[in-house]
Amino acid sequence: MRTIFYISDGTALTAEAFGRAMLSMFPLKVEHKTLAFVDSITKAEQAVSKINAAYEASGERPIIFHTFVSLDLKRVITSSKGSNYDFLDYFVAPLSAELEMEARPKTHRTHGIQENGVRDSYDSRIEAVNYSLANDDGSNISDYDQADIILLGVSRTGKTPTSLYLALHYGIKAANYPLTEDDNMESLQLPKPLRPHRHKIFGLTLEAQRLHEIRSKRREGSRYASMQQCRFELQEVEKMYRREAIPFLDSTRFSVEEIAAKILAETNLERHHY
Amino acid sequence: MRTIFYISDGTALTAEAFGRAMLSMFPLKVEHKTLAFVDSITKAEQAVSKINAAYEASGERPIIFHTFVSLDLKRVITSSKGSNYDFLDYFVAPLSAELEMEARPKTHRTHGIQENGVRDSYDSRIEAVNYSLANDDGSNISDYDQADIILLGVSRTGKTPTSLYLALHYGIKAANYPLTEDDNMESLQLPKPLRPHRHKIFGLTLEAQRLHEIRSKRREGSRYASMQQCRFELQEVEKMYRREAIPFLDSTRFSVEEIAAKILAETNLERHHY
Repeated sequence: MRTIFYISDGTALTAEAFGRAMLSMFPLKVEHKTLAFVDSITKAEQAVSKINAAYEASGERPIIFHTFVSLDLKRVITSSKGSNYDFLDYFVAPLSAELEMEARPKTHRTHGIQENGVRDSYDSRIEAVNYSLANDDGSNISDYDQADIILLGVSRTGKTPTSLYLALHYGIKAANYPLTEDDNMESLQLPKPLRPHRHKIFGLTLEAQRLHEIRSKRREGSRYASMQQCRFELQEVEKMYRREAIPFLDSTRFSVEEIAAKILAETNLERHHY
Repeated sequence: MRTIFYISDGTALTAEAFGRAMLSMFPLKVEHKTLAFVDSITKAEQAVSKINAAYEASGERPIIFHTFVSLDLKRVITSSKGSNYDFLDYFVAPLSAELEMEARPKTHRTHGIQENGVRDSYDSRIEAVNYSLANDDGSNISDYDQADIILLGVSRTGKTPTSLYLALHYGIKAANYPLTEDDNMESLQLPKPLRPHRHKIFGLTLEAQRLHEIRSKRREGSRYASMQQCRFELQEVEKMYRREAIPFLDSTRFSVEEIAAKILAETNLERHHY
């Protein structure tokens, strides 16, 4: 099997994103290996040993995605027996010409705390995470005036991971509120605490089969997990979304990244962090 | 000001990562704009209108980072007045030659739920998020045998965002445990519930000044937030980390991405998700 190395003198997150996008073009089983913070010649030489060892073990050339700021370190890495890909190579010159500006590479500018010199943008993410935690699962309805968005849905439709992702990745204060049997599913109304914040609400749903599977992992054989109950709750909730003109999304086939990106695309919610 | 567009027929997360890394080379103030799920000719034409409008408004050519799978959509986008950068362009052919395999582009393979056809990897992330939430702030010490890692530190040193990031991004079950005054700071010991799990513990610290600032936002003027108390707690905790040989990190100058990547690099913790 091919070993894929993601190497950088920083977090290697950019090398990973770059490599992942490249590999997504090829239906290929691989082994992933990240070497982050390779910030000295010694560490770069150790990385080269690992690359060469992987080559000898498998007989297949490792693929190296790297994004080094230091040319000295880069030279060491590219001396390995791997096949090297550095996307910065190709684009810095044309972008520099377009911007009429010299590139001034600096380690840790991509995922560091002072992105574009703004610590505030970082702090706003941490604040958003704290907010989303404090407002998980309908736990703190008095703070909804501070929410950027309130996710709504029945139990186990992905509200919590989506809230946290919106907070961590975009600095968005995302609360979430669960619709439960207490809300009288037979004639479901928008819960009272949410009514003043209707314009911030976004609904999540799932296919009944998937909800049934997820709930069964929690409480197998329960009424809560039964196909009948799942189907009923989802039906009533979707009816309510439509009646109340609340935008909503069936998240069955989407990852948390996709759900978050779709919500942003549909709501024009402003990001506090790029 | 330049407008930077990130455009894709998927989440545009890859275009964003690519663009962010490119722009990190240039000290430049810009306006960011993401257009995700541009998956029809009509939407692509709307995107082109937005690009051209931004050009007319500012007099500066917008920079476009895009990653389209569909060539038809890409053709529409590149007909705009923006300056186009598509990193897939340059690397697919050489990687294809190295892998001796044709590229088979497919939308949503990068950030979709079925990454490399494995739904399990996605579910493991959601499980990890649920675990980390249930084990936030020392709330559930009976589940520590399931933890991949347990973050330790005094109040407000970044344990919670780091745990959630590890869970969301890497599928790592990260618990966290706060050291408080109840732990008798004067002669601080490793808390009892943690002792059987010593090999999984990772400590977080901060500089006293930064901790003082963060705590002051919460409870200004309190003893809890005072420089003296912050300095004292950090001192005692670091002594304890050293005595107990617990690896630790001063997170003052690092973003949550960097802290998480550093923890992974130091502990060789296995990722459940790439």
